[in-house]
Amino acid sequence: MAVVALGGGHGLHATLGAARRLTDDVTAVVTVADDGGSSGRLRRELDVLPPGDLRMALSALAATDQRGARWTEVLQHRFGGSGALSGHPVGNLLLAGFTEVLGDPVAALDEVGAVLGVRGRVLPMSRLPLEIEADVVGLDADPRVSRRIRGQVAVATTPGRVRRVRLLPDAPPACAEAVAAVLRADLVLLGPGSWFSSVIPHLLVPELLAAVLASPGRRAVVLNLGPQPGETAGFSAERHLHVLSQHAPDLRLDEVVVDSGTELQDTERAHLDRAAAALGGVVRTAPVAVPGTTVHDPALLAAALEQVVRAG
Amino acid sequence: MAVVALGGGHGLHATLGAARRLTDDVTAVVTVADDGGSSGRLRRELDVLPPGDLRMALSALAATDQRGARWTEVLQHRFGGSGALSGHPVGNLLLAGFTEVLGDPVAALDEVGAVLGVRGRVLPMSRLPLEIEADVVGLDADPRVSRRIRGQVAVATTPGRVRRVRLLPDAPPACAEAVAAVLRADLVLLGPGSWFSSVIPHLLVPELLAAVLASPGRRAVVLNLGPQPGETAGFSAERHLHVLSQHAPDLRLDEVVVDSGTELQDTERAHLDRAAAALGGVVRTAPVAVPGTTVHDPALLAAALEQVVRAG
Repeated sequence: MAVVALGGGHGLHATLGAARRLTDDVTAVVTVADDGGSSGRLRRELDVLPPGDLRMALSALAATDQRGARWTEVLQHRFGGSGALSGHPVGNLLLAGFTEVLGDPVAALDEVGAVLGVRGRVLPMSRLPLEIEADVVGLDADPRVSRRIRGQVAVATTPGRVRRVRLLPDAPPACAEAVAAVLRADLVLLGPGSWFSSVIPHLLVPELLAAVLASPGRRAVVLNLGPQPGETAGFSAERHLHVLSQHAPDLRLDEVVVDSGTELQDTERAHLDRAAAALGGVVRTAPVAVPGTTVHDPALLAAALEQVVRAG
Repeated sequence: MAVVALGGGHGLHATLGAARRLTDDVTAVVTVADDGGSSGRLRRELDVLPPGDLRMALSALAATDQRGARWTEVLQHRFGGSGALSGHPVGNLLLAGFTEVLGDPVAALDEVGAVLGVRGRVLPMSRLPLEIEADVVGLDADPRVSRRIRGQVAVATTPGRVRRVRLLPDAPPACAEAVAAVLRADLVLLGPGSWFSSVIPHLLVPELLAAVLASPGRRAVVLNLGPQPGETAGFSAERHLHVLSQHAPDLRLDEVVVDSGTELQDTERAHLDRAAAALGGVVRTAPVAVPGTTVHDPALLAAALEQVVRAG
């Protein structure tokens, strides 16, 4: 079974932790618009892809034997103190170094993935470092005024409401290997994660969206377990699907995975079913959270995803 | 055959390149007093052993297959630009990261050595970061005035004449694994390299000196091919041996390897023979340089070293 997971950050980490329980053939396709923290410093200083989310995805797919675990720990280790290196994870520096030497981020990811014993592959959604720009309302006294906010950190932390996001440059080229992986997938996953900055960006890469639409596999969205502070605070489950459609009107889905612990009023559930149906899909309710938390349980999520594939 | 090479920097790199042609059982024992460049920045910021000379030694012993060559290239790759990372080789950062995670520089070297396909081992002469302090004359109008100069860079570049060096802390503990390697070696090599800052420091670690004296193997000094600007400018071959005795009065050697292209007047040669004899050894003249350069030829040096072992 071939699984492709589109996302970034902690949300993608959770999906990959589940997907690896189903198959060794997992491909992570990762956003490359981060401009904060170590990733932001490195992209500005070295003109490389922001490595943080790529490193996290590698860690999620790394071998769990002694060597894999040791390398994963080192890759995730952040230098402390208050000096020039403070806050940089070792893995970000290693990915940047391999990218400079090999001249290609995909070759760098494959090489670092090999030492981690990664089965499957981690790919950027584009070989170009990207920026996110958002139209945000609610920043002015007049609630109708929309302002442009640029940068992933600024968008993710805006006190206003995000109406729409764009990538800069617009319509960037997709990573060809990512397109190929989607086109041979049995299951294509979108979400969970920061909706505007980690999930929607994939739909704004035209070749990647076209591949998702053309994929022979099942297409599933995994909804967040709790409200994301900032960019989607107060969003209903239905609203999450609406903004996907808004950014990619052609999008079609097979399933929307919702944790069975999610409290939905009858009307909310009806709205969610209707929004899923508008995308061509159905809602699958299954226990996927670690009880009492807003964290996905890898084994439970894997079981739900297996059902998604079987239902195809 | 087991070979142990004591040194640091480019000199040690040359010896290791020769020793690896003789055997897979090569141990590099590396000075840890560097305070310049990337190494100096990292030891000050992170309180780790200065990694530069350790990284160079790993590179010298790395596998030459495609993977070993690629990792070696990345380890040696220095970040460019003018930012916080500028000038740091990737390998220095990786060694620092592994040291912080594993809590031990030897474990870190073994782990990074494994990914490079190093046969043999790279060890620090001590697990403690050390400093070099030198008594230097010629810095004042009165040539008899001796001043204390601290730090490897300061010592190596002093316009004065170095009379004696010390380690700080004094008589540091040796790396136990390095002592063990010397005590089972068939050949123990000292030099070439920066005499006061890369060669003599090994003799100032009491347990390491004791191991050299107690080793069942042959003990050889490989002299430099040209004058080292700065610390030993103008030193004769004989003088090089004298300062070894001066810092380690008990030192005994079997052979002193001199390139056959070295121009020695009859009296200079007689003085060199006498200095070698005072250490219990003989001078071996052999072609070991790349003709017309001051660089050792690994194959030629290997052939000479094999003769040193056979003469035992």
